[in-house]
Amino acid sequence: MNPRIPAKALQLRSLVRRSGELEISLAEVDVPEPAADEVLVRIEATPINPSDLGLLFGAADMSSAKVTGSAERPVVTAPVPEKFMKGMAGRLDESMPVGNEGAGVVVKAGSAPAAQALLGKTVAIIGGAMYAQYRCIKAEQCLRLPDDATPAEGASCFVNPLTALGMVETMKREGHSALVHTAAASNLGQMLNRICIQDKVALVNIVRKKDQADLLKAQGAKFVCSTDSPNFMAELTDALAASGATIAFDAIGGGKLAGQILTGMEAALNRNAKEYSRYGSTTHKQVYLYGMLDTAPTEFARSFGMAWGMGGWLLFPFLQKIGPAAAQKLRERVAAELKTTFASHYSDEVSLAGALQASAMAAYGKRATGVKYLINPNKGVAA
Amino acid sequence: MNPRIPAKALQLRSLVRRSGELEISLAEVDVPEPAADEVLVRIEATPINPSDLGLLFGAADMSSAKVTGSAERPVVTAPVPEKFMKGMAGRLDESMPVGNEGAGVVVKAGSAPAAQALLGKTVAIIGGAMYAQYRCIKAEQCLRLPDDATPAEGASCFVNPLTALGMVETMKREGHSALVHTAAASNLGQMLNRICIQDKVALVNIVRKKDQADLLKAQGAKFVCSTDSPNFMAELTDALAASGATIAFDAIGGGKLAGQILTGMEAALNRNAKEYSRYGSTTHKQVYLYGMLDTAPTEFARSFGMAWGMGGWLLFPFLQKIGPAAAQKLRERVAAELKTTFASHYSDEVSLAGALQASAMAAYGKRATGVKYLINPNKGVAA
Repeated sequence: MNPRIPAKALQLRSLVRRSGELEISLAEVDVPEPAADEVLVRIEATPINPSDLGLLFGAADMSSAKVTGSAERPVVTAPVPEKFMKGMAGRLDESMPVGNEGAGVVVKAGSAPAAQALLGKTVAIIGGAMYAQYRCIKAEQCLRLPDDATPAEGASCFVNPLTALGMVETMKREGHSALVHTAAASNLGQMLNRICIQDKVALVNIVRKKDQADLLKAQGAKFVCSTDSPNFMAELTDALAASGATIAFDAIGGGKLAGQILTGMEAALNRNAKEYSRYGSTTHKQVYLYGMLDTAPTEFARSFGMAWGMGGWLLFPFLQKIGPAAAQKLRERVAAELKTTFASHYSDEVSLAGALQASAMAAYGKRATGVKYLINPNKGVAA
Repeated sequence: MNPRIPAKALQLRSLVRRSGELEISLAEVDVPEPAADEVLVRIEATPINPSDLGLLFGAADMSSAKVTGSAERPVVTAPVPEKFMKGMAGRLDESMPVGNEGAGVVVKAGSAPAAQALLGKTVAIIGGAMYAQYRCIKAEQCLRLPDDATPAEGASCFVNPLTALGMVETMKREGHSALVHTAAASNLGQMLNRICIQDKVALVNIVRKKDQADLLKAQGAKFVCSTDSPNFMAELTDALAASGATIAFDAIGGGKLAGQILTGMEAALNRNAKEYSRYGSTTHKQVYLYGMLDTAPTEFARSFGMAWGMGGWLLFPFLQKIGPAAAQKLRERVAAELKTTFASHYSDEVSLAGALQASAMAAYGKRATGVKYLINPNKGVAA
């Protein structure tokens, strides 16, 4: 056995007790032995995405969180409000590993040639339980990174890149020619902006603040609207009319923004209407809510005719729908453009224990643009 | 020329002036001469459907309406609140005829054989401008009624019957096996209940009051939930679990009901879930908003996973989507079951002038279950 691989290693766990308490801790678990078609990856970079926070924090009130234990083995506890316990029914009293995606070095491989071929290579992987020092996974699920790529560069290979590509793909498949994106200054939003510039697809970026608008404009974005502008609706309608966007991907979810986008699309379409229809434009307008940055209720005034839809959008059902061949094409594009189109930027790099410090949780828990944490579960551990 | 056909006749008109005033009046218009492929129908029955009120009243504040003019030629005026004038832009200063559907007797026909064949027959027609004493229309657009059917029996042949059939058809085409309907004690709701009983499709009826629930149960409805019950959500979830309904048609539009239906569907699906998924059930849940009985904003809490959709649903785009052959099949079923499945009931029958009396407008303007007006534009006129 490779002397550098320990028998036991750390894995982050999230547990919601029936009593209404969330507990996040670092468990010491056996490092698994890869089967013939598997590899053991020493995880060196795994991002904290908004899509990880649901499982990590559950429905707990993190403003009341307490951190106990030692600096190396912190234990986070927080109360789950009674009204949210119903939604936790499926995970009660089950200690769950967390972390959608990550990257690292293959330190051990099963006997199969495909597994052996990856030994010593840097790979990106997806499949949960990435907030851990080691992750055993099937060789075929690994995306081998270019030789000059670091684990940090490949850590966010799947969720953001495939989501951004999936939006453009959904736009095309559903018969639209331009799209809208909210929370557009996020890592994902900047990535989508780069894709759209490259693919010559018109993109209407919606951000909250002027400095976010400036950032996107500096990156070549043509249409950027900021909700903090007093003329937001007029500016949005102009951008929608100029771009022809009739589909939107909204990361916010709560509040009035999704409805405002539909209202703006309808107003843009009616600028060129020749005849009055009390049912509004016959062009279908769609908003997909793919995130929940605002957990408040969604509210809209239905001032956009009858040809409209709103709905959930999620990466994995989308990939299933388009099938393995189409999904593989998207993955290959990500690997080929890893350091350009699909580059991610992190504001902080922490260890597993560091991710459970109160200040860190407060920072990434805000889901704020510009704050993005990368965990290196082997930070400070000699490789 | 047939001496019984006058040279001029009455037609109801709705006008929204740029100054912000609605005016409804009876215009005296030339009775048209049918072209070769057209017929002239003496309208004897035309319903006031919720779908007519949008064009009739515009966005006016009808609580401030005034009726002037004579009893035979009333003129209704009402102010349009400034904030709604934007939505009226397409119809400003244009005097518009009203009335989606109606029935009457063909009193004159063009030279084409298809037109001549209808002379003297009772027909149902759709196409707007039915709130008039005479309507000229293409012969091919007429649905000839059975010989023993009166115009009143055929007046609501299209909108409600095809909408109800369209809901069941949409349910099947989108892969669902049971459906939910709100405002279920309406004429349309009772019709849908009869269709579902006949076609053995499980239907969850949502009503506002116990007496409406009793009415539907007396008509054989199996699942009826009333929003005035203190256990509404639990009762709805039980009905959704028992029926397996994953698509809903909502006539209300505003408020929380559409979201509650999705929440209930998700809870019903999760009763049998084997594994926890933080993204919720993978079964797609859909609510179509086809009406606006409540014009308040729509609000929902997104407590139903990611596999959901909400959207507008409208009869005519639906008929276009399924194509003429499938639409014709639906129409033939309506004609065949006119006096049974598709029978409509009216609380009041009025003349054109009677429809513009303050008490009448207050009654049908409420869109209340059990109140349904039928206009006979030739009421009291010798045939």
